[in-house]
Amino acid sequence: MTRMRAFLATLMLSTPLSVMAAEDPVTTFVLDNGMQVIVVEDHRAPVVQHMVWYRAGSADEPKGASGVAHFLEHLLFKATDKLEAGEFSAIVSANGGNDNAFTSYDYTAYYQRIAADRLELMMGMESDRMRNIRLTPANIETERDVIIEERNQRTENSASALFSEQMRAVQYHNHRYGVPVIGWMHEMETLNLDDALSFYEIYYSPNNAILVVSGDVTPEGVRELAEKYYGVIPFNPALPERLRTEEPPQTAERRVIFRDARVAQPYVSRSYLAPERDQGAQKEAAALTLLAEILGGGTTSYLTEKLQFNTQVAVYSSVYYRGTSLDDTTFNMIVVPAPGVTLQEAEDAMDVAVASFMKEGVDPAQLERLKKQLRAQQIYARDNVDGIAQRYGSALTTGLTVEDVQAWPEILQAITPEEIMAAAEKVIIPESSVTGWLMKVQEQGQ
Amino acid sequence: MTRMRAFLATLMLSTPLSVMAAEDPVTTFVLDNGMQVIVVEDHRAPVVQHMVWYRAGSADEPKGASGVAHFLEHLLFKATDKLEAGEFSAIVSANGGNDNAFTSYDYTAYYQRIAADRLELMMGMESDRMRNIRLTPANIETERDVIIEERNQRTENSASALFSEQMRAVQYHNHRYGVPVIGWMHEMETLNLDDALSFYEIYYSPNNAILVVSGDVTPEGVRELAEKYYGVIPFNPALPERLRTEEPPQTAERRVIFRDARVAQPYVSRSYLAPERDQGAQKEAAALTLLAEILGGGTTSYLTEKLQFNTQVAVYSSVYYRGTSLDDTTFNMIVVPAPGVTLQEAEDAMDVAVASFMKEGVDPAQLERLKKQLRAQQIYARDNVDGIAQRYGSALTTGLTVEDVQAWPEILQAITPEEIMAAAEKVIIPESSVTGWLMKVQEQGQ
Repeated sequence: MTRMRAFLATLMLSTPLSVMAAEDPVTTFVLDNGMQVIVVEDHRAPVVQHMVWYRAGSADEPKGASGVAHFLEHLLFKATDKLEAGEFSAIVSANGGNDNAFTSYDYTAYYQRIAADRLELMMGMESDRMRNIRLTPANIETERDVIIEERNQRTENSASALFSEQMRAVQYHNHRYGVPVIGWMHEMETLNLDDALSFYEIYYSPNNAILVVSGDVTPEGVRELAEKYYGVIPFNPALPERLRTEEPPQTAERRVIFRDARVAQPYVSRSYLAPERDQGAQKEAAALTLLAEILGGGTTSYLTEKLQFNTQVAVYSSVYYRGTSLDDTTFNMIVVPAPGVTLQEAEDAMDVAVASFMKEGVDPAQLERLKKQLRAQQIYARDNVDGIAQRYGSALTTGLTVEDVQAWPEILQAITPEEIMAAAEKVIIPESSVTGWLMKVQEQGQ
Repeated sequence: MTRMRAFLATLMLSTPLSVMAAEDPVTTFVLDNGMQVIVVEDHRAPVVQHMVWYRAGSADEPKGASGVAHFLEHLLFKATDKLEAGEFSAIVSANGGNDNAFTSYDYTAYYQRIAADRLELMMGMESDRMRNIRLTPANIETERDVIIEERNQRTENSASALFSEQMRAVQYHNHRYGVPVIGWMHEMETLNLDDALSFYEIYYSPNNAILVVSGDVTPEGVRELAEKYYGVIPFNPALPERLRTEEPPQTAERRVIFRDARVAQPYVSRSYLAPERDQGAQKEAAALTLLAEILGGGTTSYLTEKLQFNTQVAVYSSVYYRGTSLDDTTFNMIVVPAPGVTLQEAEDAMDVAVASFMKEGVDPAQLERLKKQLRAQQIYARDNVDGIAQRYGSALTTGLTVEDVQAWPEILQAITPEEIMAAAEKVIIPESSVTGWLMKVQEQGQ
């Protein structure tokens, strides 16, 4: 209990229990058992989205049990002490709502969208399955077949997905981000009841969860229900610190050539290890976010101009970066060559274009236009309360705070051309890169 | 106890307690607590080599604690209940002997060479440190600095070692063979007393150990001492099954370019994932052993002829394969280009040579010569009892049996040209390969 009190004291210092001064219509507080709550008000329609996020994703899995986070996500739709298997979603549906769940490297989340007056029903069921699932060996058999079929559909049947999986495996030497969220097939086939229950027991606790409710609700109403349903679940004092295996220094330029008969459109993919948004230190990630936009964010981007308009080397090019990640993420480029252009020519053209960008630097006028667009997007985004809920849930499960989420728009606005170029110089280096070619299978001897 | 009996029954079926009918002067038996014993007699000089091998190497380490197997090896020279830190080696030395230890992916071994009449003294000390080490926080601090310095010396100071480490990290996506035995520096820096003791408690048990004594001893004499010193240590019923994370299918050709200012001689390195010697199934590994010899085992090998004699593309080339491994190993080629030859030219010449070998097949006369050489080497090898001890120790810690070791020479002799080509066709495929270029750092813009 001593430990729990200390923990709560820390939390309270950083997230006061009252309404936050923020542009998002957001209220946050913490239940006595350590469960964080985010309320996003939107009274335009009498509907609500109820989400529970766990700070547990595929990168938290024990070695040899890849896929268990996602497997458990499926198993949470089986029986609990109170519900039969499948009854959860049937009740949601019978009440005019819909529900689902998703798993990523850093989190697993469950949600329902439903009429606002059904929120209590949702909380009753969601809090029940946080602690009371009842799994049978038959559940394991059946659902393991389902996730294996899911891997077949989404990964094994897609050359592009398999290619991307190999790229990540080569990008990460030591970190679990190199292992696919869905799992390696040979490990998925061995997942058992113990694997699932062990992951559940460790991570499915209120002090490892975040409740996010958006829609036609009041903070007071949500608090009352949250205390009634989630507040009574005991704090888990055995919740381990979230320790990941980290990357050693990346010191070698890598290449991956993936050949598959099903490839209709070969392309070049480039990935660099890149820093993520860190608590209280988001400037570098903000600079990389803007860099990705400037280099390859759309039809007015640098690569598009150089590779698609000035020359006709490519039919498509794109640069993307996702900074919302607990550990080091990637900065990615893709170039799809035009007919008759080889992958080598496309890659060379990409490298020449990036090198010339590094010499020219950021065009200040372009950066200003981009910032104005971002500002406008952020204003529109405030109308999308589900998007806000998603933003807070993913941030809080990847090591960020409510303050970090709220500071992010202004941090982006304040980034200078020099900061963008400094981030580019640091990240765009061969030593931390993987270059992939997705190719058609060649004939013998070619 | 029931479990232990069942375990012993199995062992006894496969390794009778009497002298084995074998060409090696070897006797094997098993103590009641599950410890295997190998005795290699050699009465030409009154000396003995005493080794204890543990079925625990770097690939058995928990995630995030790379280097702990090797760290523990160092710590076993610290104090025990009976000895002060450093006293072990001091006593060996004062008795005219020398001692050391080594750690690999699959095993850790300790040995002393000393006058035969000191064997009992050695067993007394070695059995003592199997269970009774007493580590202090100061030991941890000091010895962690030592292993970090060892990594600095052997790895950080060597471009070639760093390159090789990166190659392995890219070769293995999911298996611990992709992590260096010495450990990643950032994880070594965090190794603590708990990490070391936990590894020790799990793996340093008689039923996880193999005693190998070679030299001027009799099986009866060794048995008597072994029962007195090792036989009294309790069987560890909690010894876990030795489960490793396995590789997913390797489906993408990979490349690694490592640049370092210290590189005096650039070269091309090629690595293929390859099967290892398996219990009762060693033919494929035998075929690969012969293939490596034929392709690049010496001055009469195929690559040497094609790359160094017929053309002067290379100043050195070599092919090697080590089949003694618990899990999938690698089949490797190296080509060091002659002055003025680029790495690309060297790699192309290597690929052309290998492709022409695949067309021509094995020269039966060359294979016969090679088998005769191997037979002669094996006869000479029987004079080297320490080599025999090493052979049994490494085999028994990588999943092989005494019978496998003894069958190996005849399996090699019986391999046909067709079996060699079948193994080559299976292993030498781009999808499971990593090609590395070790290069000098280039000037900007080159």
